Formats: sequence, C-alpha cells, structure tokens
Amino acid sequence: MSGKPIAPGGTVGILGGGQLGRMLASAAAEMGLHVHIYCPDENPPAAEVAAHYTRAEYEDEAALIRFAESVDAVTYEFENVPAETARILSEHGIVRPGPIALATAQDRIVEKNFMKAQGILTAPYADITDETSLKDAVESIGCPSVLKTRRFGYDGKGQAKIASPEEALAAYDEIGRQPAILEGFVKFEREISVIVARGIDGQTAAYDPVENIHKNHILDRTLAPAELPKAVADEACAIAARIASELDYVGVMGVEMFLLPEAGSKRRLLVNEIAPRVHNSGHWTMDACAVSQFEQHMRAVCGWPLGHPRRHSDAVMTNLIGDEVNEWERLATEPDTSVHLYGKAEARPGRKMGHATRLYTLGKRPPVTPS
Amino acid sequence: MSGKPIAPGGTVGILGGGQLGRMLASAAAEMGLHVHIYCPDENPPAAEVAAHYTRAEYEDEAALIRFAESVDAVTYEFENVPAETARILSEHGIVRPGPIALATAQDRIVEKNFMKAQGILTAPYADITDETSLKDAVESIGCPSVLKTRRFGYDGKGQAKIASPEEALAAYDEIGRQPAILEGFVKFEREISVIVARGIDGQTAAYDPVENIHKNHILDRTLAPAELPKAVADEACAIAARIASELDYVGVMGVEMFLLPEAGSKRRLLVNEIAPRVHNSGHWTMDACAVSQFEQHMRAVCGWPLGHPRRHSDAVMTNLIGDEVNEWERLATEPDTSVHLYGKAEARPGRKMGHATRLYTLGKRPPVTPS
Repeated sequence: MSGKPIAPGGTVGILGGGQLGRMLASAAAEMGLHVHIYCPDENPPAAEVAAHYTRAEYEDEAALIRFAESVDAVTYEFENVPAETARILSEHGIVRPGPIALATAQDRIVEKNFMKAQGILTAPYADITDETSLKDAVESIGCPSVLKTRRFGYDGKGQAKIASPEEALAAYDEIGRQPAILEGFVKFEREISVIVARGIDGQTAAYDPVENIHKNHILDRTLAPAELPKAVADEACAIAARIASELDYVGVMGVEMFLLPEAGSKRRLLVNEIAPRVHNSGHWTMDACAVSQFEQHMRAVCGWPLGHPRRHSDAVMTNLIGDEVNEWERLATEPDTSVHLYGKAEARPGRKMGHATRLYTLGKRPPVTPS
Repeated sequence: MSGKPIAPGGTVGILGGGQLGRMLASAAAEMGLHVHIYCPDENPPAAEVAAHYTRAEYEDEAALIRFAESVDAVTYEFENVPAETARILSEHGIVRPGPIALATAQDRIVEKNFMKAQGILTAPYADITDETSLKDAVESIGCPSVLKTRRFGYDGKGQAKIASPEEALAAYDEIGRQPAILEGFVKFEREISVIVARGIDGQTAAYDPVENIHKNHILDRTLAPAELPKAVADEACAIAARIASELDYVGVMGVEMFLLPEAGSKRRLLVNEIAPRVHNSGHWTMDACAVSQFEQHMRAVCGWPLGHPRRHSDAVMTNLIGDEVNEWERLATEPDTSVHLYGKAEARPGRKMGHATRLYTLGKRPPVTPS
C-alpha cells in the first residue's frame, strides 16, 4: 500500500463527526473520494456531507472492525481517539496519522518530553502525580503557573491557574486530582501556529505561520500570515516539519508556538502544543490557498502528492462562537468574505458554529484591532 | 416568504444529481443549509454529499409533492426540467428560478424571440416546422448554417451542420425531424460568457466575462477573465443582467455570447444561448472568488445577500473529459492548481469527470495555447 495512492473512487474513513470531519469530508468528495464517518453522536455535522455513516461507540469493537475493513484508510478529526480504538483499527486497516503521533499528542508530559528530546524549546514543566510532586514543582517552577490534566484538555478545559503557592491544592482539586502537568508561565509576544503536512514519502509542506488571537481561551481570530522576521518564520516552519518527521507523521498537523520577546532570548520560538489533525488556525487555507489544509490532509492520508502551500491572498479568519453565528447575514454582505457554517442545530455558548474568512491582496491586510 | 431569507438550518431541494447538483449541494452545506437531492438515477454524484436523497422519476407526482413539501425551496441543476414537473413543484412549494426562465431557455425559438424583443443581437434564425419552412429558411439565411432541435440539445447533441442547400434534408433527418431552428453561421472572434446572479430583491451581480474554448463541441477551457476592451466587458455584463431582470430571474444564469470582429459591427456582442442554472464556464469562481457561482446561486435561491463577484486571482479552468480524469495525479503536483473530481465511477468518452483550475496573480495569466 505505502507506495500506491488511494485513487479517486476509493473510500476514506473519518473518526469523529464534528466540523473538522465535515470539512475533511467535503474536501475528500472534491477529490473524488467516498467518505465514511464513524461517530457515536446522532446527526453529526460531518455525516450529512459524507457517503456513509456508522453510528457507534468508539469502544464498539465489532463496529470498528467493520468500519476499518470497509475503507481504504482511516483518519480522525480529534486527538483524543482512545488508544484501544486506534489499536483495533490499526489491526484491521491503515490508520493515518499513526499511533506514535497520537500517543505523543494525547499526553502533555509525553509531548513535552518529546520536544525536549528534540531540543525544541517549551515552557518549564513538571510531572504531577501527587501533592508532594505538586508542591516541589510549584517551588521549582514558581508562580504564576498553570496546572493542566495530562490528557483530554482543550479550549482551556481541564486547567487551573496557580497565582501563588497557596492556590496549588485548590487548583489540584479543581482538575479532579488527575495525572497532571505543571507549566510555568511564559512571557510571550504573540501566539503563532504552523500548519504542516507530511506525505507517506516523507515530504513535508508547511503553510506560512499565522498569528492566533484568543478570547475566553478559544481561538477568536487567525491572521495569515503572522508578521514575523523571515528567519523566524522559516524557523517556525522548520520546527513544525521536524516534529512531523520525527513522529513519522502522515497528514496535517497544527503546531502552536509562542513568539518570545526579542530581548529575552536568542531563540524566539517555543512550542506550546501539537494537534495531530487539521487545526482551527488553518481554516483560512480553504479560501486563501489552492489546496486547503483539509484537502492537504486527505492528500497525505491517501498518498497523493502534497499541494503547494502558497497562498494567493492574505486572510483574517474569525470564528463564530455560540450566538455569533447569528451574524451570518451581515457577514454575507461583506466583500471578499467567505462564510462557513457547520450545520449545527444549537448555538450553545462556546460552541464553534462556523467561521468567516476575509481575503486581502497579498501584503495589503490592514492592522487588526482587538474585538 | 419573498422578503425573508431561508436561514441556516433550512433545507433546499435540488432537482438533478450530476456534478452541478453536487457542487451546489457542497456550497449549500457550507452555508449551514441541508440539501435534498431529487434524481431518478442510482447513486448520483450529488446524493453522496447531501443530507437527503429521493430516487424517483421526474414524472412521479406523489414523490414530487412530498419533495416540494419537505424543503424550503426547490432549484435545479439542468434546464430540461419537464414543464409538468415544474408545475407540480410550483404548486406545492417555491421553485427558483421560476417558470418564465425555464420556458424561455428550454426552447431555442422562444429564447431567440425573447432576445429579439429585448433588442439583443442573435444569429439569424428561423422556425422550422416542416420541409417547406426548412427550404425557405435555408434560402433566406444561407449556408453554412446549423439545424438544431428546439429542445433538449446540449454539448453539440441534437444539431447538424448544413454546408449547402442539398444537405438540408439529410440534416433534418439526422435530428429526427423534430421541431427545429435554423441558425445562420456567425463569424465570431471568440466565445465568451457571463455568469450573472439575480436576487429575490432584483439586485444583480455579474462575474467578469470569461473566454471559452471548446473541443469536440464540449467546453475545454475557460479563461478568466476574457481579454476584452472595458466597454465590451461592461456591455456583456449589462446584457446578462438585463436578461436576468427581464426574466424575473432568481439564481445564477450563464449567458453565452459571441464576440464579433471589430470591423464587422458597431455592436460586438451577440447572445448565443442562456443556461438558467450554474454553468460550466463559472467553475473557476470556486477557486478564484470569495463566493463561488454555486454559493451565489444558493444565496439567490435562499434570499441571502448576493456575494461580491470580485475575483482575487485570474484563472484557467480545464475540463477533464472522459479519460482525461486519469491525469489527476499529475495535475495534483501542479502549483496553484485545484483539482475537482465529481465522483463518477465510469469515465465514458465525452463525460465530464472533473475539472482543474489554475490560479494566477491578477493580470499575470500567461497566454493560452491551444491544447
């Protein structure tokens, strides 16, 4: 299989049925591929635009085996695929990205250790297993710092800030005394990310780094490209490509980084975390590049040549969170703007309902003001 | 209904399940709309990317009524919707574009008479009902000329060339002695088309005119934009907008025109035919504009504000006909190129299997050589 691509007419399975699965499914359809969505939810957004849909739990071994055997390759839209699910699927089919990437990204300690081994800068961190290790860590790392569960955190969930040593135990309680990591606060200028793809032949292709602006711990806007000295942008892409290569990665990966102040360090980039999947900060590629991150991921998974990551336009992507989706009609009147809605019935607070991308002529993006 | 848009969460029905229906369905999904495909075929390309699919004949009244009543509006991907089908759907729901446009575009004589009444230039033509009217028409219009069935012709089907008067009867036999039109040959420089949209509020928006190059009577390539003097381009857009307005049109329409040589006439544009639907020569908008013709059509049908038709890039769209689809892997390696495949299982000769769009910086498209 490894050398031969999954040609048009083939079928790709996607684990997960949210907006990322939906945009992956649409991209795959454009490639002439059939898509099979596997998801425990009723009416997941992705199933509606896919040829096939299995509704089953991630622990349903028989359903997983049928699924893996009915498709040419399986990929996923979320990093928290249970290890056992991934194992079953791998035994009965091809899973891309593979198990190393998944294991690394699922556990903040494993992830940080991996970065350290690669000589990649991270925030100072410590493994928290009990009250004693927490106390020692708060002492050595200092405050403020953040206590995060090792697993299953996203969008600020599963974490608690520790402003002073006295708050440590309360924070530990807040995250349910789960296996955790303590991370030191890093003074950074901006958060950037790189969307990198790696093919089955080991080739990599990275879109230019972008800047991400958060609101309530959720991505609010992505500015493409990030305004960076060329050497820093190149270094960011090189770091992302190295991570993908070292993990023997196949597919698209999002690498979140902090840009450190110029005075603070000779090395200005620190990796915050990786997402072994398409990434919210890559949505702008749908409208500003010939090949989007979703198609790029499917190309990698299917062994197609990777697309060139050049963009034809600069862009600002704005997430539509919760009620913000009600702005669709106003957004639809804005020039050079693509509105993408995910077909979710209920606009709960904090729920990603859609996004809008405004395009600008290369080099002509106006300064962005905080919203 | 007329004032209130079909909001995200609504459902649009599409009559027809080919590639146009498929690209319409994907665009509608991006708008957060649900799609219901109605098509008599098994496994039509569009059904795979739509939420609902009814397989039934266009003459199945009960199925049509259920379909019309289950959606917020019905549109179609082909102009040859039987009049009776359109009537049934209109009685049980909203059909856009409406019956006048359909009746006009379905019959070449009605279409030409409409243009004449608007003072829009067409090729010389005559209504052919029998051998006598054919003989008279060949005399008055002269040779070479083309005999076409009044209805159901496309991609060069249902037409026969008449090089000299003696060939007239053979041509008439060739098209099955159906009600026909005789059209005089027009010496034109190039074929262009305009993709125009008209909303329910009467607003229109036209993408810049494009040049179309045919091979074996099938569109081979579209160059966006056509190289035209500004006055001619403006006139082309104005003609298209006028046609849409006069037909009280709602949706996207393709207007094919011939550009006459500068010396021949003060008026350089002649309308060849209209297509009351999204059009092959508008596929480039998927990759070169913030709002594609498919989304634009759905916006009009749903009463949304029309998108701005500005393009961010110039483009060359190449159809992949029959076996040409096998070039997908080579095309996937080309920079700035989007490959779109329609998911059709069998690559029959003359069958539209996909298309590829190559983007260029505005004003930097290289000259195109014949393939």
